[in-house]
Amino acid sequence: MNQSVDPGDTVVDATVGNGHDTVYLAKLVGPSGHVYGFDIQKTAIEHTQQALQAERLDHQVTLTHAGHETVAQVLPEATTVKCAIFNLGYLPGGDKTIITKPTTTLAAIQALEARLATNGVIILLVYAGHPGGDKEAQAVLDHMTQLDQHQFQVLQYGFINQVHTPPYLLAIQKR
Amino acid sequence: MNQSVDPGDTVVDATVGNGHDTVYLAKLVGPSGHVYGFDIQKTAIEHTQQALQAERLDHQVTLTHAGHETVAQVLPEATTVKCAIFNLGYLPGGDKTIITKPTTTLAAIQALEARLATNGVIILLVYAGHPGGDKEAQAVLDHMTQLDQHQFQVLQYGFINQVHTPPYLLAIQKR
Repeated sequence: MNQSVDPGDTVVDATVGNGHDTVYLAKLVGPSGHVYGFDIQKTAIEHTQQALQAERLDHQVTLTHAGHETVAQVLPEATTVKCAIFNLGYLPGGDKTIITKPTTTLAAIQALEARLATNGVIILLVYAGHPGGDKEAQAVLDHMTQLDQHQFQVLQYGFINQVHTPPYLLAIQKR
Repeated sequence: MNQSVDPGDTVVDATVGNGHDTVYLAKLVGPSGHVYGFDIQKTAIEHTQQALQAERLDHQVTLTHAGHETVAQVLPEATTVKCAIFNLGYLPGGDKTIITKPTTTLAAIQALEARLATNGVIILLVYAGHPGGDKEAQAVLDHMTQLDQHQFQVLQYGFINQVHTPPYLLAIQKR
C-alpha cells in the first residue's frame, strides 16, 4: 500500500483492531492527509487512540466506534479514497466470536468502490479458517469476480500449500 | 525473478518459446552463470539461438531441443538451480495445438524441485483458457497444494475478475 498512498491522501482503515495499520497509514498520508478508522469494538478504538496519541498522530485520524458499513455517512461528501484496508475475521487476542460479517463487509466494500480515486486500492486480508470465515470469504470472492474489469482490477494473492488456512490477500484497484 | 537470481547462478528456461525470457535470464546470471533452455519445437530453439547470438549471450546458454521433462538428464550432476521458468500452454504466434501437457510438466517440476537451491524458485505462468489448459492447470495445482510447507512455499497470484481466462502465476520457493 505504500506504493499507492502519498502524503495528503485520504485513506480508510476499515478494521482498526490494535491500531498498527492505522498508525502506519497516518504516517504515510502525513499532516496534510487523513485516515478514517472504524471498529465495532470499543477496546479497539481505545487502543488505537492511545497508539496514535503516543506518536502524536491523533489529529490526522478520525476514529468511528461503529461498523465499516457506516463509511459512506462518515466520509465527507466528494472525498475520494486512495486506499482502504480490511482485516477480516476476529481481532487477534480479542473475543473470537466477534467477527466481520458478509453483509456489512460487502456494504463497506461497495461504498468504498464508489469513492475510490483512480488507481486507488481496497486491500482485504481474508481469513477463512474461523467459524463463519469461509462464508464471508465466499461472499467477498463472489462479489470480486463479478466486478467490471473495465472499472476495476482484482488481484488475489496467497500461499496455497499451508495445512492451516492462511489468510490471502485481495486487492481491488480502480482503473 | 530478478530478486532471486544473482550473477553466477544456474537457471532453467523450461519453455524457451520466442527466447525473450532466455535472453533476460542470460543477462541476469552473467558470464559466470548458466541458463539451460528447453523446447520441443525446433523453430523455438532456432529463434532463441538467434536472439542469444544477437546479444552475444549464446555461450552462457545450453539449448536442448527436447521437452523439459529431460531436465534431470541435461543438468550436470550436483548442480543446484536458483530459478526455473515455465510458460505453460502453446507458443504465442505458433501452432496452438502444440501445448505443454500435465505428465511432462509435472515430471519437469518434480525434477526441478529436487534440484532447487535454498530460496530458489520455480515460476509457472499458468494458462487455463485453451483446450487442455484447464486439465494441466488442475494437475499442477493439485501437486502444488500437496507440497510440504516445511520444504516449500507456494504462492498463487492472479487477476480474478477478467472475462477471458487470464494466466495466473504460481511460485514455488524452497525453504
